[in-house]
Amino acid sequence: MTESSRIKNPDGVRADARRNRERVLVAARAVFAERGIDAPMATVARRAGVGVATLYRHFPTRDALVRGAFTQQMETCARTLTEALADPDPWRGFQRLVETVCALQREERGFPAAFVAAFPDSTVEHAPSRERAERDLMTLVRRAQATGALRADFHPTDLAVALVAHCGLVSALPEDGAASRRLIAYLLQSFRADAANGPLPPPTSLSLHSFPLEASSRR
Amino acid sequence: MTESSRIKNPDGVRADARRNRERVLVAARAVFAERGIDAPMATVARRAGVGVATLYRHFPTRDALVRGAFTQQMETCARTLTEALADPDPWRGFQRLVETVCALQREERGFPAAFVAAFPDSTVEHAPSRERAERDLMTLVRRAQATGALRADFHPTDLAVALVAHCGLVSALPEDGAASRRLIAYLLQSFRADAANGPLPPPTSLSLHSFPLEASSRR
Repeated sequence: MTESSRIKNPDGVRADARRNRERVLVAARAVFAERGIDAPMATVARRAGVGVATLYRHFPTRDALVRGAFTQQMETCARTLTEALADPDPWRGFQRLVETVCALQREERGFPAAFVAAFPDSTVEHAPSRERAERDLMTLVRRAQATGALRADFHPTDLAVALVAHCGLVSALPEDGAASRRLIAYLLQSFRADAANGPLPPPTSLSLHSFPLEASSRR
Repeated sequence: MTESSRIKNPDGVRADARRNRERVLVAARAVFAERGIDAPMATVARRAGVGVATLYRHFPTRDALVRGAFTQQMETCARTLTEALADPDPWRGFQRLVETVCALQREERGFPAAFVAAFPDSTVEHAPSRERAERDLMTLVRRAQATGALRADFHPTDLAVALVAHCGLVSALPEDGAASRRLIAYLLQSFRADAANGPLPPPTSLSLHSFPLEASSRR
């Protein structure tokens, strides 16, 4: 398509842009799954069959590309958090949240890498929805503690610790669903107040900011 | 050194070979820490300043190179297992074993990658010492269960699951000692019989063969 035909046909341009965007996202998921989230942006562009400039026009940063690639997974996480808050049994809501995020980590090979990669680089791009997600998680934790199900010394960052560890497990042993389920069962039992059999060392100061629990702002 | 001087001076040849071997090991630890255990052997050779042929003469397989690079860490694991077996309190021995392996995973940046990489490729090269390590671990687990400290449904492969997960955590968050210690504390508490508050899903069929608990055969 020439530059003049683009100008004459704005619908065609938009359709073209949409197709390119979709091809970039498919390529990104494949490349992230194979080579991790640090794979060069140029590799994603090459796989998608688009120029690097086109890729950057759609996704100006790696963070934007990662979020674009895993929008659906992040929406599921966000929805599960909302449902957990609505559950009359906050422990059951909490448990489902952990199980759902872990199931996504098992199912979508690139998602675990994206998940962990999100931690070090806390961007403020989507600050409002992140802050809400963090607040919602704190509320859920407090409620589950108030019912006496979740141990009192559980810290919200412990959820991040558990999920990053689970992520490492499924990355190392992608075919081993039994290992994943076994780890989740142990961790959930250890979070129960009736399992607490000793003090814990201090919690990490790990930020929850990049936690993929907020709804993606890109639709 | 020319070929004729090598022949005339066998001690010099041996000293030369020892130096090259040591340079390869230092390079391997650095490369594994930076790029993971899958880094090309040629990269290790280049970093060491030796030819690829020289590297392969010392370490014919990647497994041999990994084991060579982390001999000291593997010796520590093996010694801790022996000490755990000798401990009159088998739970304390078990707990120390977990904490020691995890501390090694935190301290030596390349070791976690080596540790996980060992799992998929179970080689039979060191079969006798591996079988002994596996037998020792089973003995320790049975004894800790017999005292009533370790839960009866704990399976020896759960230790592998816990260590691979911890490994993923320290790889993702290498500076976060608090996260590591917190995860270990939760897992150890969940392994206690007095914490068991529900059934567990079936254990993984993950092999323990490549578990770095046997003494290295290379001294």
